[in-house]
Amino acid sequence: MAGSPVMKEAFGNFKNVNKNVTSQHVARLAQVSQSAVSRAYTPGASVSTHTRQRVMDAARQLGYRPNAIARTLITKKSRMIAVVMSQLDNQFYPLVLEKLSQRLRSDGYHVLLFITSRDESDGVLAEILQYQVDAIVMASTVLSSALARDCARAGSPVILFNRMTKRAANEDHPPSAVTSDNEAGGRLAARHLHAGGHQRIAYIAGLEESSTNLDRERGFRDELALLGSRIHARAVGNYSYEGAQLAARQLFSSASQRPDAVFVGSDHMALAVMDVLRSELGLRVPQDVSVVGFDNVPQAAWGAYQLTTIEQSIGPMIEATATMLHALLHEGAQPSAVTVPCRLIVRTSSKTSAL
Amino acid sequence: MAGSPVMKEAFGNFKNVNKNVTSQHVARLAQVSQSAVSRAYTPGASVSTHTRQRVMDAARQLGYRPNAIARTLITKKSRMIAVVMSQLDNQFYPLVLEKLSQRLRSDGYHVLLFITSRDESDGVLAEILQYQVDAIVMASTVLSSALARDCARAGSPVILFNRMTKRAANEDHPPSAVTSDNEAGGRLAARHLHAGGHQRIAYIAGLEESSTNLDRERGFRDELALLGSRIHARAVGNYSYEGAQLAARQLFSSASQRPDAVFVGSDHMALAVMDVLRSELGLRVPQDVSVVGFDNVPQAAWGAYQLTTIEQSIGPMIEATATMLHALLHEGAQPSAVTVPCRLIVRTSSKTSAL
Repeated sequence: MAGSPVMKEAFGNFKNVNKNVTSQHVARLAQVSQSAVSRAYTPGASVSTHTRQRVMDAARQLGYRPNAIARTLITKKSRMIAVVMSQLDNQFYPLVLEKLSQRLRSDGYHVLLFITSRDESDGVLAEILQYQVDAIVMASTVLSSALARDCARAGSPVILFNRMTKRAANEDHPPSAVTSDNEAGGRLAARHLHAGGHQRIAYIAGLEESSTNLDRERGFRDELALLGSRIHARAVGNYSYEGAQLAARQLFSSASQRPDAVFVGSDHMALAVMDVLRSELGLRVPQDVSVVGFDNVPQAAWGAYQLTTIEQSIGPMIEATATMLHALLHEGAQPSAVTVPCRLIVRTSSKTSAL
Repeated sequence: MAGSPVMKEAFGNFKNVNKNVTSQHVARLAQVSQSAVSRAYTPGASVSTHTRQRVMDAARQLGYRPNAIARTLITKKSRMIAVVMSQLDNQFYPLVLEKLSQRLRSDGYHVLLFITSRDESDGVLAEILQYQVDAIVMASTVLSSALARDCARAGSPVILFNRMTKRAANEDHPPSAVTSDNEAGGRLAARHLHAGGHQRIAYIAGLEESSTNLDRERGFRDELALLGSRIHARAVGNYSYEGAQLAARQLFSSASQRPDAVFVGSDHMALAVMDVLRSELGLRVPQDVSVVGFDNVPQAAWGAYQLTTIEQSIGPMIEATATMLHALLHEGAQPSAVTVPCRLIVRTSSKTSAL
C-alpha cells in the first residue's frame, strides 16, 4: 500500500520535507501568487484545479509541507471543531460521531474529540477553549444556557446536538440546537399503541431532566389524553441498558395490572426491556406486550428484536448541524434552533391493530 | 450547572478573559516563577498542589487563559494524539474509542479523531501530519510498515491497535502494535467446540487479509488439526453484519452436510449469524448449531444472544497503548509489539459437552 499511486501523491518526497522552504518558494516555482498557495492548502477555499495542481507539484519538488498549527495563529482559525459526547454504549451516538466527523472533515474541519461522563461535560469546556476551536458540538450532554453564551463570547460558539438547554425563565437568546421533533415523536408512539388496542400503556423514561425525555414524554402523554387514554404505569431507565432492565422488572413483575404495551425512551433501553420480558419473565412480544422504542439504531432491525421505533433522521440532523456551523462561523448568524421530523418505523415488536 | 462550584473553579472570571495578560503577570501576582505557571498548566508536569492553587487563583484574578496552540509552537509538542478508526458500527470500536480517549485525556493528551473508511486510512495520514500530532494510534485499519516508518521519521510515531502491519520479508523494525493473542484465541475456540462433540465445524472469516483474521484462523485450524479435526466449511463475512448474514446463508441453507458448529471471526458478525440461523432458517442455537464469536462486546451478553465468545481485554490493551506511547515519546524507546492474552467466555450459544 505504501507504494500505491495514492500514497505517492499524498506524501510526495516525504522523507525530504524541508523545513526552510516557505510558501513564497512554492509560489515562485509554481508561478502563482502566495495567496494561491495558501488557498490551495485551505479546505473549501476557492482555487482552480489547475492552480492547485501546480502548487502541489511545486510543493512536492521543494519538499514543502504547510504547518496547520502556525496557520492557526495567523488566521485565528484552527479549523478544529470540538465534539463532546457521552454514552457511546448507546449505538445511536457512534453513528452520529461517525457521520458528523466525516461531514466536518469533508467541510475541511478536524474533530477534537472529548468523551465525557454525563456529569463532567460542563467542566471539559475550560479545557476545550484552550485549543481555540472554531466551534463546539455537544451531543448527549447537558449544558446550561449561560455557559453556552460564555463559550460563544470566548469565540467558540456551541451547537447542542440532540439536546436543548435547560431554559431560564428570562432567556432571550437560547444557544444553537439541532434536535428531532421529540414531542411529535412521542405523539406518533401514542397513536400507534392506541391503534393497537392497548389498555394499559406504560412509559419508561430516559434521564428525567433531559430535554429529549421531557419532550418525548409530554408528546406521548398529551396525545394519549387526546385519545381518551393515559399512561398506566411509569418507570425510569436513565437511558442506560441496566437502568432499563430494572425499570422493566419493576413494571412487569407483577401479573395483575401488568402493562400490555410500553413506550421506551430510547432503542438502547427498549432492547434491554425486550430481553427482560422474554428471557427473564417469559412474556411474548408482541402477544403479551407491545414494545416501541425511539432512535432506530441498527440493532432495532436485527432479527432477534425487530423493534418498532420512532426514527431520528441522523442524515438531516448532521446536515442541519453543518449548515448551522457555516452560518455561525461565516455569515455572522445568530444562534437558532432546528427541529428535524421523526417517523414511525413499524416492525414486529408491536401489534398493528386491535385483536 | 453553570453555578456549580466545579464550574466556577474551571471558568473563573470567564467573561473577563484578558488577552493582554501574560504568564509573567500571573507569576508576579502568585509570587512564583514563570516556569511554575507553565508547569501548572501542563498536564502531568511536576508542580505542588499549593503552587498550582496559587497560580490558578492569580490567573482567575487577572483573567488569564493559556493558549495551547501557541504553546505547541514553543514546545514542539501539541499534546494531541491522532486516533484513526473505522467500523464504529462494530460495538467493539466505540468501546475502544471511549476508553482510549478517556485514558489519553487523563494522561494530558487530546484526541484528534479521524473516522475513515477502510480504504482511505493511509491517505488520511498526510492530513494528520499537518497538525504536528505527538503520535498516531490506528485501530481497525491497515497500514503498511513503510508508511508507519515515514510517520515516525516525520516526528509522529504510529501505534497500531488491534492490527499488525503486513510484514515485509526483509523487515528489520516493524512498527509498534498492541494486539490480542489472536492465534491463542483461535485455539481456545477450537478446543471449546471440539469438547462440545461437534463433527462439522465451520469458520466465518473477517477481512481475509487482516492480521486479526489471519491469526485467529491459523490458531483455530492448527488446534483443530492437533485434535484430529478440521474446518468442515468456510465462508467470508468481512467483519460486517451484512457480510456475515450472507456467509451464514451460504453455509447453512443446505440441509445435507450442514455444519453443527461455527466459529465466527467477530461478535458483530456472530450476532448476525445467530439472527439468520434462528429468524430465517428456523435453527436452534445451540441445539442445532453452536456459535462462538470473538471480542466479547456488550451485546454478546444480552438476553437475546448469550453468545459464547473469546474476550479481547480492552482494559489491558488500552493500558499497553498508553505505556507504549509514554515510552516512545518520553524515553526514546524503539517500536515494539505487545500481545495481550484472550480468554474464553462460555454462555448458552454453544454446547459445553458432547451430548
